[in-house]
Amino acid sequence: MDYRPLLARRAAAEVPALFRAGAATPPGVIPLTYGFPDPGSFPIQGLIEAAGRMLRASGREALQYGPIAGPAPFLDLLVAKLRQEGIRVTHDHLVVTAGGSQGIDLITHLLVDPGDAVVVEAPTFIGALQTFRNAEADVHEVPLDGNGLDTDVLASLLQRLVDSGRRPKFVYTIPTFQNPAGVSLSLERRRALVDLAHRFGTLLIEDDAYSELRYDGTASPSLFSLDGGGAVFQVRTFSKILAAGLRLGYVVAPPALLPRLLQLKVDVGTSPFATHVAAAFAGDGGGTLDRLQGHIETLKGVYRVRRDAMLAALAEHAPPDVDWTVPQGGFFTWLTLPPGGDAAALLPRATAAGVSFIPGASYFARGDGRRHLRLAFSFLPPSDLAEGVRRLCRVIGSPER
Amino acid sequence: MDYRPLLARRAAAEVPALFRAGAATPPGVIPLTYGFPDPGSFPIQGLIEAAGRMLRASGREALQYGPIAGPAPFLDLLVAKLRQEGIRVTHDHLVVTAGGSQGIDLITHLLVDPGDAVVVEAPTFIGALQTFRNAEADVHEVPLDGNGLDTDVLASLLQRLVDSGRRPKFVYTIPTFQNPAGVSLSLERRRALVDLAHRFGTLLIEDDAYSELRYDGTASPSLFSLDGGGAVFQVRTFSKILAAGLRLGYVVAPPALLPRLLQLKVDVGTSPFATHVAAAFAGDGGGTLDRLQGHIETLKGVYRVRRDAMLAALAEHAPPDVDWTVPQGGFFTWLTLPPGGDAAALLPRATAAGVSFIPGASYFARGDGRRHLRLAFSFLPPSDLAEGVRRLCRVIGSPER
Repeated sequence: MDYRPLLARRAAAEVPALFRAGAATPPGVIPLTYGFPDPGSFPIQGLIEAAGRMLRASGREALQYGPIAGPAPFLDLLVAKLRQEGIRVTHDHLVVTAGGSQGIDLITHLLVDPGDAVVVEAPTFIGALQTFRNAEADVHEVPLDGNGLDTDVLASLLQRLVDSGRRPKFVYTIPTFQNPAGVSLSLERRRALVDLAHRFGTLLIEDDAYSELRYDGTASPSLFSLDGGGAVFQVRTFSKILAAGLRLGYVVAPPALLPRLLQLKVDVGTSPFATHVAAAFAGDGGGTLDRLQGHIETLKGVYRVRRDAMLAALAEHAPPDVDWTVPQGGFFTWLTLPPGGDAAALLPRATAAGVSFIPGASYFARGDGRRHLRLAFSFLPPSDLAEGVRRLCRVIGSPER
Repeated sequence: MDYRPLLARRAAAEVPALFRAGAATPPGVIPLTYGFPDPGSFPIQGLIEAAGRMLRASGREALQYGPIAGPAPFLDLLVAKLRQEGIRVTHDHLVVTAGGSQGIDLITHLLVDPGDAVVVEAPTFIGALQTFRNAEADVHEVPLDGNGLDTDVLASLLQRLVDSGRRPKFVYTIPTFQNPAGVSLSLERRRALVDLAHRFGTLLIEDDAYSELRYDGTASPSLFSLDGGGAVFQVRTFSKILAAGLRLGYVVAPPALLPRLLQLKVDVGTSPFATHVAAAFAGDGGGTLDRLQGHIETLKGVYRVRRDAMLAALAEHAPPDVDWTVPQGGFFTWLTLPPGGDAAALLPRATAAGVSFIPGASYFARGDGRRHLRLAFSFLPPSDLAEGVRRLCRVIGSPER
């Protein structure tokens, strides 16, 4: 059967091969690749207890079809959780999604026709790039630095796009503990970014996957809470604070747009089972979240130690002209090779030396990321992180044959 | 903020209001609306045991990110289950989805550009219609009768579309225990349908949500197993045979198209947690499915009694010129009012008399379904079904004021 004439234009287009979660690591190689949560920190006993208690009390609801936006007990939990963060919302702002990724996908389908302009920071999350490419978006990049997205460059880009009649549908940003760069957007730039959205009439997608996992420093307000005018979608997830395998996330949306998002969510609602388990784990299932908050405190302790182990190993072993970011939270640091360096060319040598990473080019839609690479400190114990960094630095410091 | 210029064309279009799962039923009204599984048949104890056993043994895998196509133990289970049905596949045919609905959505995104022709049977599943409308497909209808989709009418339609350069991307069909009509496609027509797909170079989406729930009669082979040439996507679900709240389904796809489907599945894989729970419930988690098969046998007993109760009540109470289908499985019967009848006009009177249903028009993309209505026998106990049908028939038989 000849499928070619049957494929949608976007699906027929060759999509660049992207790094795939779950790709096997050769034996003996320390994978600094995986931005996965620490499997040793999954609250297995707590989830066994919560699942049993919840199924006995609410099995008929948890195992049945539920509302498209999500079951009310879980929405209550989200409202309470967001209130703790200074974000005041009601059920009318919320839709539960299959992880943060489905949230990005739904918003993209809501806003993007093929050829529409969108803006991302560079580097950015690979999964978001794939989603925007699937939608045939015209992806524009704005560089980031130690204070996050460069809002001056963004202002010029927005002006240029609007002047040419190509107002972008949204700016996609990860303002806190960015993936892959590990940096956070400064308060001043957060304010500037929200202003720019209103000035140019574009929306912001605030991907906030990591903000609960802060190891030091002071939190800035979210873009959602800085915005007074409905310009921000906040995309959230339980993948990092509870369990990625539940595939549980949510979108905090402008209420005027929520019904349209729900119309695009044709999966008959994200797992009532998973939402009920999460609500039962978080507290008493009635909107409390004490146990979840306690678990997040535990996770912060675990990941702080890992971050410190990675940064200490970099400080000890990195050749003098290698640079890296110092994240105050999240899962990643972003390393810059000496001038002329090429992370993709380095990878085979690194793998042969027993360590792997993701080359930076994967995180760019257009720009040249060859001098960069992402190191994840979330997945491995501190001793592996230290040894992996040691191996990596030795390879960086040794001349190519 | 003015969102209108920011919406994608398809999202900005007014979508017809569709009947929504979870809409509240007024007190005292017997809802013959819900095509939901029987909540009293959820295997709550079995799932508590399975979840606990699974989390103790495989918590680190079940709570972590997994492969996009689905975890291997669950794919093994699917391979074994399909083999029992005479369908021989490997992991290369399979992608786990959030219910059957995500499967339909992924296939639609794979194949449909705005304006592309697709074919459905009339009436058909409301959720599929919404998905095709979201994609701005040009939806063509083929009527069905007691033997399912009329393949002669389909042949003429395909010829006409192909002659005018508008070859449809696919024919979407529910060949077994159709939703909403309750009928099944005859073997002869199944063969004809597969032949037509190859002759006209179009694909088939076989939505097979109900085939495991057969109460009498003999099964016909699936379209997937009749097809030798990769023309069929089979969309399946665990919603009816285990628990809708798990949101667990799968697509059996032509292997050549699977990688492209996976590229569109940007949700980082359907819940590893849910798949591991289901595999642990089904058997020993190693691909066996004895307990799942036993549970399906139990369900068949429950639903057979409910179907019989509804059909007996119709036989006893229906006015002489009312017609209905006699399903050999699934969840629904489809009722045809006397000439001149209008189900939507009937609904307020029926609700006042204490019974509700879904008017037929919702199930048509273009055609006129006003004489029809869907009755679900899955959700309520037999006594409620009998009383609901009695009330309904009294309203049908009484003249409008």
